[in-house]
This record gives sequence, C-alpha cells and structure tokens, in this order.
Amino acid sequence: MKIRAKIVGAGGYGGVGIAELLCRHPEAEIAALVDVENAGQPLGALYPHLAGTVDMPVVAPDDPTAQAPADVVFMATPDGVGMNLAPAELAKNAKVIDYSGDFRFNTAESYADYARRIGREPAHAAPDLLPKAVYGLPELHRAELAADTAVVGNPGCFAVSCILGLAPLAKSRAVRLDSLICDCKTGVSGAGKKPNASFHYPARYDNMNAYKLAGHQHVCEIERELSLLAGAQVMVTFTGQVVPVCRGIMSCLYADLVEAKTEADLLALYREFYAPSPFVRVWESAAPVGSMHVRGTNACNLVVSVDARARRARIVSYIDNLVKGQAGSALQNMNLLFGLPETAGLDRPGMYP
Amino acid sequence: MKIRAKIVGAGGYGGVGIAELLCRHPEAEIAALVDVENAGQPLGALYPHLAGTVDMPVVAPDDPTAQAPADVVFMATPDGVGMNLAPAELAKNAKVIDYSGDFRFNTAESYADYARRIGREPAHAAPDLLPKAVYGLPELHRAELAADTAVVGNPGCFAVSCILGLAPLAKSRAVRLDSLICDCKTGVSGAGKKPNASFHYPARYDNMNAYKLAGHQHVCEIERELSLLAGAQVMVTFTGQVVPVCRGIMSCLYADLVEAKTEADLLALYREFYAPSPFVRVWESAAPVGSMHVRGTNACNLVVSVDARARRARIVSYIDNLVKGQAGSALQNMNLLFGLPETAGLDRPGMYP
Amino acid sequence: MKIRAKIVGAGGYGGVGIAELLCRHPEAEIAALVDVENAGQPLGALYPHLAGTVDMPVVAPDDPTAQAPADVVFMATPDGVGMNLAPAELAKNAKVIDYSGDFRFNTAESYADYARRIGREPAHAAPDLLPKAVYGLPELHRAELAADTAVVGNPGCFAVSCILGLAPLAKSRAVRLDSLICDCKTGVSGAGKKPNASFHYPARYDNMNAYKLAGHQHVCEIERELSLLAGAQVMVTFTGQVVPVCRGIMSCLYADLVEAKTEADLLALYREFYAPSPFVRVWESAAPVGSMHVRGTNACNLVVSVDARARRARIVSYIDNLVKGQAGSALQNMNLLFGLPETAGLDRPGMYP
Amino acid sequence: MKIRAKIVGAGGYGGVGIAELLCRHPEAEIAALVDVENAGQPLGALYPHLAGTVDMPVVAPDDPTAQAPADVVFMATPDGVGMNLAPAELAKNAKVIDYSGDFRFNTAESYADYARRIGREPAHAAPDLLPKAVYGLPELHRAELAADTAVVGNPGCFAVSCILGLAPLAKSRAVRLDSLICDCKTGVSGAGKKPNASFHYPARYDNMNAYKLAGHQHVCEIERELSLLAGAQVMVTFTGQVVPVCRGIMSCLYADLVEAKTEADLLALYREFYAPSPFVRVWESAAPVGSMHVRGTNACNLVVSVDARARRARIVSYIDNLVKGQAGSALQNMNLLFGLPETAGLDRPGMYP
Repeated sequence: MKIRAKIVGAGGYGGVGIAELLCRHPEAEIAALVDVENAGQPLGALYPHLAGTVDMPVVAPDDPTAQAPADVVFMATPDGVGMNLAPAELAKNAKVIDYSGDFRFNTAESYADYARRIGREPAHAAPDLLPKAVYGLPELHRAELAADTAVVGNPGCFAVSCILGLAPLAKSRAVRLDSLICDCKTGVSGAGKKPNASFHYPARYDNMNAYKLAGHQHVCEIERELSLLAGAQVMVTFTGQVVPVCRGIMSCLYADLVEAKTEADLLALYREFYAPSPFVRVWESAAPVGSMHVRGTNACNLVVSVDARARRARIVSYIDNLVKGQAGSALQNMNLLFGLPETAGLDRPGMYP
Repeated sequence: MKIRAKIVGAGGYGGVGIAELLCRHPEAEIAALVDVENAGQPLGALYPHLAGTVDMPVVAPDDPTAQAPADVVFMATPDGVGMNLAPAELAKNAKVIDYSGDFRFNTAESYADYARRIGREPAHAAPDLLPKAVYGLPELHRAELAADTAVVGNPGCFAVSCILGLAPLAKSRAVRLDSLICDCKTGVSGAGKKPNASFHYPARYDNMNAYKLAGHQHVCEIERELSLLAGAQVMVTFTGQVVPVCRGIMSCLYADLVEAKTEADLLALYREFYAPSPFVRVWESAAPVGSMHVRGTNACNLVVSVDARARRARIVSYIDNLVKGQAGSALQNMNLLFGLPETAGLDRPGMYP
Repeated sequence: MKIRAKIVGAGGYGGVGIAELLCRHPEAEIAALVDVENAGQPLGALYPHLAGTVDMPVVAPDDPTAQAPADVVFMATPDGVGMNLAPAELAKNAKVIDYSGDFRFNTAESYADYARRIGREPAHAAPDLLPKAVYGLPELHRAELAADTAVVGNPGCFAVSCILGLAPLAKSRAVRLDSLICDCKTGVSGAGKKPNASFHYPARYDNMNAYKLAGHQHVCEIERELSLLAGAQVMVTFTGQVVPVCRGIMSCLYADLVEAKTEADLLALYREFYAPSPFVRVWESAAPVGSMHVRGTNACNLVVSVDARARRARIVSYIDNLVKGQAGSALQNMNLLFGLPETAGLDRPGMYP
Repeated sequence: MKIRAKIVGAGGYGGVGIAELLCRHPEAEIAALVDVENAGQPLGALYPHLAGTVDMPVVAPDDPTAQAPADVVFMATPDGVGMNLAPAELAKNAKVIDYSGDFRFNTAESYADYARRIGREPAHAAPDLLPKAVYGLPELHRAELAADTAVVGNPGCFAVSCILGLAPLAKSRAVRLDSLICDCKTGVSGAGKKPNASFHYPARYDNMNAYKLAGHQHVCEIERELSLLAGAQVMVTFTGQVVPVCRGIMSCLYADLVEAKTEADLLALYREFYAPSPFVRVWESAAPVGSMHVRGTNACNLVVSVDARARRARIVSYIDNLVKGQAGSALQNMNLLFGLPETAGLDRPGMYP
C-alpha cells in the first residue's frame, strides 16, 4: 500500500512542487490537497499543466478530507502555520515535514532568535516538539532521518546551497571560521507565487539587485549547522541577490584556508565527504556547469577552486531552489523517514535547454 | 527485453531530447549515441544535466557500436541525412523515425517541391521508401503507425501545432479552404543548438520578429495534411515569428466559417475529434492557458473561439516545440510502432513555474 | 520661455515615460508631477534611474502646485480620470493630452460603445468636449493637431500599431474591408506598473498566451480610424497576446487584396503614404528588423509583404508600446499643438542591444 | 567646429555604443566608421535602430576615409589592434582612446603580465607610448585626462565597477589589503556581438554560472589601481559570473575593516571621495536600487553596508557594462581631453522599465 501524503498549502509553488513529484513517485500518492484559498477547485484548474494529472480538488483546512489521517503531511506553508497544525497531525500518527522555519531549530531560544529576525513573535506554539525535530538536510542528518523521527524542519533554500558548499571545509576545520562569506544569487521563484512590485516582469527582466543587506534570516541555520560540524562557532557574511532567472541558486562561498591547499586537495576532501550522497556532485574548477544543469532536479553541483595567492577556498554551489531547495529535499526526507531509497521519485534527469 | 534505441545526431537538442525521454521509458533503453562530433565524450559531459544518468559515450557513425543493430533508430538529424542512412538500418530490421523532412512526403514529386523550398537537391536518395513512409502525427495517422510500418517522417514543429489546430475544421469542411491563416510564434530552441547572430542572447532577449516572410518550408506539410482531411486543396498563409522564450509554440489560426458557428459548436467538434487522443486538450476561449502549461510535456492545448461578427473561427494552439513538436512525438510514434500504450514514457506532468 | 508641462499620474509607467522625454526636450519643462500616491516623494526616489535628473517631488491632486496653471497637461491616467479633470485645466488655458480612452471618440454614442466594452459607465463626464477632441495619431490627423486644438485623445498602443500598419490599404481600398485580421503581441510593460499574477516574473518568463479572446477594447478605435480612411465600414478580427518582452508590440496584419498586388506595389503605396511622417519607416519583406530596433524610440517599422498565392497582404508593424504607443506619441502631439518640429525631443536613436 | 571622431571597430557593440552617444553629443560628430567587416554598408543597415540617424557607411581600414585625420579616434577593438594603429593616428595629431588592455598599463613589464594572462604575446607593439598613456577612469585620473594627454587606456568593465567600489576603502587604508573579494556578475552583452555556445539564447536564458575561476584578466588593473591608492600592494580574489541580463554589472565587494566602522562612517567616506564625480552615486544599504537603474546611463551606483558582527565592509557596485563600463567612460574621457564638461552628451536619464 502506498504512502498517503497530505499537502497543506497546496496552492503555492511549494505545494505544487511536491504534488508534481508525488504524482511520479513509485511508493506514494496524494491523499489530500489543502489550502485556505481556492477550495473546490481541482489543482489542475489552478495549475493547468496538471490538468488531467492532478484533478483532485483543493479542500479548505476544515473540510473532512483535510482532516482525514495521512501517513505524511507536507506543510508547504509560511512561518507560523506548521507549528500550530503539527500536534494534531502527529496525534493521528502522521509524520510532518514542514517547509518553514518552524522546526528548523531545536530549542525555544534558537527559534526565538530566528523569529525576531523575521519580525515574528518569538514564542513557539509547540516548543516541546523542537528537541525531537530533525533538520531536514539528509546529507548531514541522514542517520536521524529515520522511522522514529516524526517532525522534520525542511531547510531554507539559500541554506541548502551554502551548507552543502561549506560543510566539508567546516567539518575539517580547514578554514578560519570567522572568514566565511556567502554571496548568493537566487531566481525569482524563491519568493513564491504572490505577485509584488519587485518581481513584476518589467521591473525584473533585465535587473539584478542585492537585498536585505541588513541581515537575511537564513544565516541562522547556516551558522548553526556549520558550527555543529566545526565544533566551534562559525560566522558568516551573507549577501542575498535576485537575478532574472526563474529557478536556481548560485552561491559563491569564500573562506580563508588555515593552511595552503590545492584544488586537488579540496576535490579529494569534498568527494570523500559526499561519497554517500547521491545528489551532490563535485566538479573541478574548469567544469562548464551552471544553474541550468540542476534545474528541475534534486542535484547540488559543487565547483571547487582555490585562490592560491590569497590562500582562499572558493566553492560555487548550484541548486534548483524549488527542488533541492524545497520540495525535492522534502521528498528525500520522506523517503528516508519511510525507509525507501533516498532517490525514489527523484531520479529524473531534468530537461535541457 | 527492452526496445533498444539508437540515436543518430545525439549531440543536438533533438538528440538529447529523445535521450531524456528514453532514460525514463519503462520499455525502452538507449543502445547507442551516434554523432559526427564529440565522439568519445559521455553525453553527460556534453550536457552536464545528464551526468550520472546518461554516461554512455557518443560514438562516431563509423564506430562498430554505431553500426550494431537496434530495434529503432531515431534520426535526430538535419534534412538529407536520414534518407542516406535509412536503407542500411532497415536492412538490419530496425524501424526508422526521422526528424527531418526526408520522410514526410510520399512521392518523389512532393518531396522535390519541399526540397526546392529549402534550397536542397530535389532528388531523394531513397525514393522507393517514400510510399511506405508514414507521416508521424499520431492524432491523424494512428492506424498506420503500427507494427508493419518501418519508416516514420516525424512532423515539423510548426506543422504539428497548425495541423492539430485546424484538422477538425478541415475535416468537417466548416471553413473556406482558401481562408486559412497560421500566425505562429516559436521559442528559440526550435532553431537548434548551433549559435548564430539572431539567437545570441543580447540580440534576442527583448526582441521579437517575423522571418522567412517569403515562405516557410513547413507550409507544405500543413497544406498536404489538411487537404487530405478536407478532400480538397487547402491554402495557408503562414507567418513564422520568433519570441524570447526557450520552449514553446503559440499558433493563432484563423479561418472563415462557411456557416455561422458558436464557440460551443466548435468545442463539441474539437472534443469529439480528439476524444481518442490523450495528448490533445480542448479549452474554451476564457481558459487561462499559455505555452508554459505544455512546457516539458507532450501535450497540445487548443483554445477555441469564434469572432461572430466576422464569422471567423480562431484557434490558439500551444505545444512545446521540443516535445510534442519533436522528441515527444517521435517517442509517441515509437510506442505505436511497438504496440505500447501511446503515453508510455510520456505521462509526466511538466514542472511549473 | 519653455512650455510648462504638468503630468497627472506621474508615478505610473506612462507618467515616468513622458517625464523621461520632457527632461530632454529643448522647448519644454516639467511644471508639476501629480499623483494620488507617493505625494512628497521625489520622482527620482520612486524611480532611482531619475535620481539627480528629476528630483522634483510628486504632489497630490489637491496640492497648490498641482492646481497651478500649465501650458499642457499630460493625463497619464486610467479611463475616467481625464474626462473629470479636463474642464478645469482647459479653463486655465492648458491643452490636455489624455492617455486613456476618454477623448478618443467624438460622440457620446461612440464613447458609450467603448465604455461598455471595458465595463465602465457609458455616460461621459464632459460630453461637450468630445466633438472638439482630436485623435492623437499625428500620421493621420496632423492637420487637426494644431494651435486651435485643446484636447487630444492619445491612441491605444495596439491601435497605433494596427492603424499605422493598415492605413494605406484602407485608404486605397486595396483590400476587402471585412477581411482584416490583427494578430498582435505585446510586451508586458503595456499592462502598467501594478503587479498581478499574470505578469509575475515566474509566471511570465518563458510563457506566451493570447488573452481577452472575447474582444479587446482597442478594436473600436482601429475600426473607426480605418473606416474613416476607407469611407466605408471596416471589420477587424483582433487577437491580443502577451510574450515575455518588456517593451514592444509586433502586429501581424492580414487583409485580402481586391486585386493582385506585388510587394513592390505595396512598398510604393506605403512609402508615398508615409512620406510626410518622420517616424514611420517602410521596409521590404527581407529586412532583418525586430521589435528591438524600435525600442526606446518613437519609430514605427512597417515590413510589407504579399502572399501572392492567397492574394493576401501581410504587414508586420513594430513599435515600442511605451513610446510610439504612449508617451512618445503624446509628446509628438504636444509638439504639433505648439507649432514645434514634430521630432523635437524625440530624435534620439535608441540603444542596442 | 565640432570634434571629429573616428570609430575603429564600428561594427561591434563597443563601436555602436560610442556611435549612439556621439550622434547626440553637442560638440562632437562622427567622422568615419571603420571596420574590417561590412565595408560599404551604412551603420544603420547593420544596426537598424540607427537607420535614419547614422546612415554613414562603414569603411575598410585601408579606405581613404579611414585614413583621413580626425581629432579623436576611438579604438573599439580587441587586444592587440590599438597598439598597432595608435602611432599613425598620433602622428596625425589625433588623440587615441583605446577600449582594450593595450594602453591600460604604463610599463612594458606590467603589460607583459597582463598579456600572458590572456594568452597573448607579451611584447607590446608601441612600448614607448605606455608611460604616456593614462588609465581612463576619470574618477581617479581626472587631472591627467587633459589637453596634453594623447593616449587613454579605457578600463575594463569589471574593473570599473570594482575599482569605483573599493577606491575609498583602499585610499583610506580602512581595510586589510589582502582581504578584498570581488564577486562580480555581468550581463551577456559584455561578451560582445559574436555568437557563441555559452551565450546562445536557449543556453543562457534561465542560467547563471561562474567562469574563468582560474583567473580573470581584469584583476591586474583592479589590483594596480587600488595599490596605487593605498600606497601598498593590494590582493583581490575575483569571481566573474554571467547571469541572464543583457546590460549590467553588479559587483559585491568585501573587505575586512581594520577598525570597526558603521555604515554612516562609510557613507561619509564615500560621499566625500566622490563629491567631484557627477556619475557616482552613493546609497545607503536600504536603498532599493538595482542594475536597471543605471542601464543605458553612465552612472555608477554604490550601495554601502557593514557586517558589524564580522567587522567587514560590503559595497554593492552597479554599472551598465556598455556605458560606464565601456563607451560612456570613453566619451567621458574624450570630454576631459578636450576641456568639455565631463557630462557632455552623457546627461540623459535612462529609460525605465
């Protein structure tokens, strides 16, 4: 019998992303599509590319279908929703995979720090769940993403690209931990489905800009995860930028090397670190890869280089913000929680051009 | 045992498109990747999105691997190649599906007309094959696309969009056969992989233009197919245009109605005509569909409307030029030739946004 | 002394467009920037490309600066605003150039037809002004755009491209007047500054679609102007489409020729017709022009061709929807009203790529 | 009498860029358009946006028109051309402004370093001119760009953005000189007019990538200029990236502060440094500016911020690579050499959107 998956927030890009993946998954199926808007409409009417494929209607949260038990619930919802809905789902024996920051932190204090940064109430609605929640980056937390875990905090898209790009350096303590710089460019889909002035086509098509220079919320989880790996506090300067692509993150990551290393040294370090991880590919500096080569897939491409003169490591990390940065990692987490191959439903090659 | 497929011209967009589809197909597999360039390189090195998925190397045409028999050969090659290679493949009992105009015509005369239009030698290299070749548009030629057919002329991308959009009107003789206008906009990928001045990013990104106003080669097959359906000569004014999208064709098709019809009349006509065709979807005029809703899929969306004042039918036809307009139709043809479900390997929903 | 120009609706694309032109104009200057939003903000703060160039603040309509007399008032406002504000401006001896449909019609009846199409109240607020208003397409109404005219209805952007493309054919009665088809593609800036779901970057970037298939409001003025030229009723089938460009309209215009004509015949007809018009350029069918070649300029490029087999004329008309389709025509109208050279402030060549 | 300007390499983006500017310049005019290709063709035929504005034909280098003396010669040519042509032009009393690296260095040794980096012959063809050549960044070398200077090495586009962004920090020695990182994203037009596989629309439209990770040639001039300002050797890690915009460079510049500074400190430092420079605008970190706000203009927007936790300065620098990064700086240099106001012909506001 197939895993029955409920999607809460089905009408947003995060919801439709997991729906696209689930309808191809060999061992899972969609049980319910829940959203506060568009109740009664087939998902294939809201998103005509799914007409004929996902014709199940969206239901409101208080609809009996929305309340029916499922094996897994994807909370494709903004901050503050999942923490309120999770307890009831867990009581029905569902596992919960939440896209927001609600379950990315293991203590009420670290959550409060994050919440303040994004201008939210610092108190968590379900603080007792925090210690049990697992940060859903399988490449670092594979062992904990298992049958006895019930709550997963799916990571932020920028965080995925930065943490995967810097983890081997942090773990090996090859770099000065206060020298890390994450220069990150994202496609516009990362901002979601809701139109706004910055993402209006005429304002965006031939435009690029940095934003939130005063501080981006994803820094918290980047520093936390890298500090855990390093066993010491890591500090990151982070610059978020938007460029006129739809899908993709390209992060240029800089760190001062404690001792001189060659590109070959780093390639060896990265390849060993990611040997167990089917979605991470390590490339040498001359490799002609770009964000298009991960578009529509769960892959992370890491291009490794060293500026020998400055004794500085530079890693370029590419992901699709909506797949490895969101729905793909969520499905990868589901696979692990249910004992399936990590790649189930995620082994498609993408499409080019 | 799986159908073994050889791809000739594997390095172009048409070749990589069928490779992407075949590596997901439940009943087929890639037997050889043949190209005159890049011999020895894994396809996943030329197209890094396939790294880890299609690592088979490209071989030159005279390589023994290229010569080994296959069950089906996709000729993803320009005009003039398939007609020279087909006889040898047929002699080895392969079926041949050719992307070019080489096998879209059933007589040496009609081929010569076409060849002259595109500035090629009018004599066909294998004229005896022409009467046996089937035009590979399954929605019109499903019955002939069967086990006893060995040569398929895959249709042109513009032709697919126009023929599907006008077929019910032609067949029913609801319109004046000399009043047809096809106003067609294509994405840039239709021009293939080879860079040129018109498709250089800076020359194209905020630009749109009509081209080949003196006559486009796809008109031949549009008029031929529609005339066959109508049982009388059809004449089409065709305008090809390029717009800054990568994938997609949007064709606005106009025809003067012989007698007044309503949109409901046409919807009924179209829905009946396409009832057996899983990839064609008929939409009413208010449906909010665009080319993105067929991107990456084998679907054709037809939006039906009537300008009652002018007694004119107007159909808007959307396809992905690289899928329904090329590799997808090719795979659909393969499925039919081998008795498989028409949708095998083609039932993925696409990705949005 | 310079012409003092007031811009009402200064904060939208239409307002900033005329501001960009006026600050380069040799004989005019901006007297006031009026808008219902953003009062007190310098225009250069709202539109940072104008910082240092147009630092004058926007004022609310009830601000004394907004009320001060000007020589000309550009109403860069939506339907229904200009008709209410015009009488007071005229009383202060200003000339009024209105961007909306408010003054494109000369009778209360024809206005009511238009208003109903766009879902507005059919009664005009200042019906006595309608007979005196001139339709602001200088290529057709140059003689009336003179010192004794005080109210100009600036044409719709699609209308400019279609009317200029078809005027010589209508005037010469070379075509069947019920056979006209306007297949028109616009860039996204035509929809203005306000974000919405259809023009959100991720929904638009690789997408094209037809819209308002049931009827577009610009048809009224196209048919009216062409009918005036032809001396008989003209009927147009119009299809509006959006493609992912920012600036530009490409209209493919079809008409059945009454008698056979060659491309050379039409070139001669068009060149004679537009000899007095500095902004209209007539090109033969092989000319490699696209919408980028008019971007940022007041030019209209007309590419003339004939489908001899079908005895059909086909004209491809290119304009920049925000310049010749809006602010540029408005300034051209101002030049004529004040006896200046038609090209004053409009003779810049554009920028490529 | 107007300054007579010859453009060598008139057919490339750099040539057409200076042609667009010159035809609007109040004190200069085009004397000859020289190119090795397209001799005999009007520039307005090669670039139809200039039809009617610049109809002067392109001439071959050996044409008498190409040989006629001019007041200034813009060498819009690749490396190695200007150094061979300059002596003859200087002998005819022309001033030479060269776009390539040929005259960006003042000694044969420093030129040789640069030449090796780009794989060229290290010997300079006119080494005696090097000590007299001035680096054409007016914001740093205004005093030397005067009547007695005859050879200007126009700076590289990335270099302009980085040097302007870091100059105040280098000059004031506020930062550690070995901590500089330049993370630079460019639009595709920076690669010029010649089509290639990386800039083919389908390969580029939704793609971003870093390139030349082993070392970019613009680093030489960035380090040289900043070292001159600092009075000590500066070392830069530079990462070039391409994103799907046509025009624009966004450089994120990082440097470790020697002592803690606030954003207000840096704003004051930058505003004082650039007070004499009309094209440089300094913005606080919350300013909503992007590359579109400098598009088509000679402006450089600098957004200043500090990561106080890491005691690191971060400057985001925006220019139009074809204007301030190329033709605009060239014209600014010409203005200075001829004693004109620096802004002559460059005071247009750009166009939005």
